[in-house]
Amino acid sequence: MLKIPPIIFKPLVASVTDESNKTMKNILFDFISKYISLTEDEKNVLLSLDLFRTVKKGTVLLKEGQKTKESYFVLKGCIRTHYVLDGDEKTTAFYTEMEALTPPCVISKTPSEYYISCIENTVLMVSNSDMEIEVNSKFPKFEIMCRMLSEELLAKQRIDFDEYKTSSPEQRYLNLLQKRPDLIQRVPQHQLASYLGIKPQSLSRLRARIIEKDKE
Amino acid sequence: MLKIPPIIFKPLVASVTDESNKTMKNILFDFISKYISLTEDEKNVLLSLDLFRTVKKGTVLLKEGQKTKESYFVLKGCIRTHYVLDGDEKTTAFYTEMEALTPPCVISKTPSEYYISCIENTVLMVSNSDMEIEVNSKFPKFEIMCRMLSEELLAKQRIDFDEYKTSSPEQRYLNLLQKRPDLIQRVPQHQLASYLGIKPQSLSRLRARIIEKDKE
Repeated sequence: MLKIPPIIFKPLVASVTDESNKTMKNILFDFISKYISLTEDEKNVLLSLDLFRTVKKGTVLLKEGQKTKESYFVLKGCIRTHYVLDGDEKTTAFYTEMEALTPPCVISKTPSEYYISCIENTVLMVSNSDMEIEVNSKFPKFEIMCRMLSEELLAKQRIDFDEYKTSSPEQRYLNLLQKRPDLIQRVPQHQLASYLGIKPQSLSRLRARIIEKDKE
Repeated sequence: MLKIPPIIFKPLVASVTDESNKTMKNILFDFISKYISLTEDEKNVLLSLDLFRTVKKGTVLLKEGQKTKESYFVLKGCIRTHYVLDGDEKTTAFYTEMEALTPPCVISKTPSEYYISCIENTVLMVSNSDMEIEVNSKFPKFEIMCRMLSEELLAKQRIDFDEYKTSSPEQRYLNLLQKRPDLIQRVPQHQLASYLGIKPQSLSRLRARIIEKDKE
């Protein structure tokens, strides 16, 4: 439905060495330049905020019931959101390179309904809602960027939601294959099944059926 | 999940008479005052843009394949978005009093994937993306309001999406009963069933079962 251009992902080392830190900065500034143009001074303000964080695979960034003011932007790696309902994990989203996540509880100022964890070694830009207010008031162009980004994410999420509502499990899987083929390789199968709203056994059968069809 | 305070809906006449136009202005300014405070001059700028529009029940505001720059804010009434897939209508959302809709195609600048229609006589505030850019550049506080509103809608939509993914049809119906009880009265049953992702017969059975339970 909504066509979002695929992001080309270049593998990078997991620890933030000086070299990869420089690469992360470049990735970040390339992304920002799609929305606003920054002066060197403005870039330095951003860098002075010490926003980069490397996080090991398996780390839980937020637990159900916790409060937070933090938002995440994935520079490298993959984070997952999941609920625990009647003792079962339900995965609702994955965020990979160049994707942003502000947990709803940051906006509503209530305890989180869900968990956020890293399913790969991940490099994040972590911002804080207090800091964002300060930066936006000093640099109105950041306000503009935040507005544009939120509007874009809202539109993209609406299309994802509509696709989920109007598709069969098989169509959902085929959609994912087309739109985010990397996820299918990167994510454990039981999490992928949960994300697609199907049972792990059904996902296996579905994949087998698709592979059979491809052979014909 | 995310607690959004219920909006108290006061019935209003459908045609925009001078009296109801005044009421619509008050409703709009009350809503805006939750985000930013406007001077009389700023209010007059907004009013000079002639944003109010009354639309008859049944009117189609946007068709699949059309391009548009228009966003809607419902002051009174109800609009619906739906897809037509293999000849079948699939309803994906309803927007009622104090709810805003920017069709994803406005952001992506592509033809619309879906239809928007009025299922009641409706009073809308209709804005245009070109106009928004102009107003926001003259009045940065509107930029702030748009950013806050988009962030709020993004968080709310995320929770709705997660609830949809993690709930059974019965739970979805019970959720709706709790969060948007007015919709159940206002919306045709086949559209409501489609919105909940179930067959109309299943919705009837489900409602009968719930009524039976209440009697016990």
